[in-house]
Amino acid sequence: MLSTALEVYKKKTKKSGLLFAKSKKFHVNGVSHNIRFFEPYPFVTKSAKGKFLNDIDGNRYVDYWMGHWSLILGHAAPAVSSQVKKQLPSCWMHGTVNEMTVSFSDIIQKAVPVAEKIRYVSTGTEATMYAVRIARAFTGKKVIAKIDGGWHGYTTDLLKSINWPFEESESLGLVDESYIVSLPYNDLAKSLEILNSVKDDLAGVIIEPVLGGGGCIPATSEYLLGIQEFVHKNNSLFLLDEIVTGFRFSFGCLYKTMELDPDIVTLGKIVGGGFPIGVICGKSEIMEITNTSSHKKSDRSYVGGGTFSANPITMVAGHGMLSHLKKNSSLYSKINALGQRARKELDKVFDGKVVTTGKGSLFMTHFLAGGVSEVRNASDAARCDSEMLHKYHFNMIANDGIFFLPGKLGAFSAAHSQSDVKDLIDASQRFSAII
Amino acid sequence: MLSTALEVYKKKTKKSGLLFAKSKKFHVNGVSHNIRFFEPYPFVTKSAKGKFLNDIDGNRYVDYWMGHWSLILGHAAPAVSSQVKKQLPSCWMHGTVNEMTVSFSDIIQKAVPVAEKIRYVSTGTEATMYAVRIARAFTGKKVIAKIDGGWHGYTTDLLKSINWPFEESESLGLVDESYIVSLPYNDLAKSLEILNSVKDDLAGVIIEPVLGGGGCIPATSEYLLGIQEFVHKNNSLFLLDEIVTGFRFSFGCLYKTMELDPDIVTLGKIVGGGFPIGVICGKSEIMEITNTSSHKKSDRSYVGGGTFSANPITMVAGHGMLSHLKKNSSLYSKINALGQRARKELDKVFDGKVVTTGKGSLFMTHFLAGGVSEVRNASDAARCDSEMLHKYHFNMIANDGIFFLPGKLGAFSAAHSQSDVKDLIDASQRFSAII
Repeated sequence: MLSTALEVYKKKTKKSGLLFAKSKKFHVNGVSHNIRFFEPYPFVTKSAKGKFLNDIDGNRYVDYWMGHWSLILGHAAPAVSSQVKKQLPSCWMHGTVNEMTVSFSDIIQKAVPVAEKIRYVSTGTEATMYAVRIARAFTGKKVIAKIDGGWHGYTTDLLKSINWPFEESESLGLVDESYIVSLPYNDLAKSLEILNSVKDDLAGVIIEPVLGGGGCIPATSEYLLGIQEFVHKNNSLFLLDEIVTGFRFSFGCLYKTMELDPDIVTLGKIVGGGFPIGVICGKSEIMEITNTSSHKKSDRSYVGGGTFSANPITMVAGHGMLSHLKKNSSLYSKINALGQRARKELDKVFDGKVVTTGKGSLFMTHFLAGGVSEVRNASDAARCDSEMLHKYHFNMIANDGIFFLPGKLGAFSAAHSQSDVKDLIDASQRFSAII
Repeated sequence: MLSTALEVYKKKTKKSGLLFAKSKKFHVNGVSHNIRFFEPYPFVTKSAKGKFLNDIDGNRYVDYWMGHWSLILGHAAPAVSSQVKKQLPSCWMHGTVNEMTVSFSDIIQKAVPVAEKIRYVSTGTEATMYAVRIARAFTGKKVIAKIDGGWHGYTTDLLKSINWPFEESESLGLVDESYIVSLPYNDLAKSLEILNSVKDDLAGVIIEPVLGGGGCIPATSEYLLGIQEFVHKNNSLFLLDEIVTGFRFSFGCLYKTMELDPDIVTLGKIVGGGFPIGVICGKSEIMEITNTSSHKKSDRSYVGGGTFSANPITMVAGHGMLSHLKKNSSLYSKINALGQRARKELDKVFDGKVVTTGKGSLFMTHFLAGGVSEVRNASDAARCDSEMLHKYHFNMIANDGIFFLPGKLGAFSAAHSQSDVKDLIDASQRFSAII
């Protein structure tokens, strides 16, 4: 039955197969992002609109990948494209100060109070790189603690303990892994023990309040508050990476609803409306160390922006996105409810074989294995049956026109509806019957 | 006379002054890129078209900054915007494989033979970060050599010896500076001596063939060939950063015209048509180490792309740009001639007080000081009178409607013409008369 899925897929994606073979001539493994490859080859997207991805063979998929979970309004949302279209004739980048940045920052600062000062960059990877550099500069200490399975982009400064097994290096060619330590998520006692062992040189801790790539797992309030308390008592910085969670569950950041007091919050994905962005938001007192007018080389943290930082297109796209979300904040209760229903019904359909984790509109189905009965951290997630998850996702791509990037969490957008949940449950039921 | 320039500027940029004060409430020093600030405050751009920047007070400037030297066709070039406009309704990013990437890579690979394999990222900073990681992974060695004054973006892996004095750390909060060594540009004997001292652990050397931020200084052929020879004999990698120079002087890279044989070339700026891009181009044999399908954690170089990598908008914008440059390659002789004339006439106007460096359409005026009579490297450039350069540039902003980012090199675009050179020379003559 599963080999049938492969045949079905190959038959309906012939043009994709040929074009992907060509792509391999130009690109390592055919892609420009490792995770976009899946066996036997990924289909090639021609266009996308609302909840749908359309491939070059004419197939249509209800998309739960949604641009690395960035597109909370669905694909090609008019709230964004109308602003971009209006901006295009006046230029897309010029590398000088522009008024769109000020308007955009005004919205962000009101919704994200820690953003007393904001710096725009072009990717999440850059934002977390700078957050680490600021923490080290501000504290005069060197060690950064992250979470096992925590994903903050490809920056060298955080490239450790991302993929299972966490103790094995992520890559050849890294030189500063010794300044990164990693903590078990949601295990406060063990995490504090590790932090305690490095406390004299601890610059900061960086955490995603919902572990994204590591398994779509929310942190408990106790865990985050406990870590925060230790970090602040220790005069280290508490960094929250809200690139995935910012503006995902409500208009603003998750930290505010959890009554946390981070020093720096990084944003990305949703806030750029789908255009390249990373944002470093921080308390003035801390961010001031990056001011190259008032600080010399010897007492500054060198934080740039880059050629494309705060370019007018990203600024108006982000402004269009956030303005729409602010005016239509009821969409959050709608998509959060879709997520809640999906988690509940998926657990039911698979009848004890899976645990569906997540929060709000984000969800991920873990096929239990290796003695795991609860998924509280990335180790639990990694011990689950990831091969079965890939089969499940691939099966839906082939047979049901439903797209999850195989192995990754799904995200509802405002373009999805209750009928999509039903279709997803029906497809899962059919898969459940054949495994 | 110079204090008059300040008064003139303040008077004509009142709205900018007010808006920039507001920007400072949101952003450290009011900007999202350190270099975009200049005293007393930078004007705020409203729009840009062709060779002009238009500020919010209604002033118009002939622009030589041209989006960090990215916009070789001038601002808002139709060759790019027409493609972007066509693409917008079909989506701007979706995080899956798309056909635009294959077409774009086809153009790049034909023009840049070292691009046997290509990976797209969103910024130059990311491209050079990955180039370093690949070099270290491929060679199993750790030290990267760069150039005094060499600028490769803000990546932690190359944040050393950028600004004068080169021996002083660029920032607090860096942890791996000990694996970076720096070489004096165009001084082969001294450079080889330093390389020799680290040869056993030398992963690679990264060089801009025209030093950009470091003073707009071309490397001599002998220098580059000499470094390349040492590096290859030593089984290290030769990395050329052509983010500024790629497609700047002719259709392709500078290395090809210099008969160099780099292992990896990084691209950015021009090739994205003004949309966020970084490109890692490399020989297949080397790039293969990044293949996560054929390599495990233990033997791979972990090179991503990021959420926005190879997004359809950047791909069609880049395709539009390169297609236009290919079809209209005569524009290169035009803009190269503008640069040549500017260099020659500026030197004449300032009558021995300056040396105007550069190549093709890139040029930079150095006010000689500190015993410098020739500008062969970043140390020479740094010893020149940068305060006078700032005054010169600011004076033209205030009095002549000519914009250079104060202190930075200028770039001609296809939107400039001989009359602009004349205006620049005339303005320089007036400045020359008052200093």
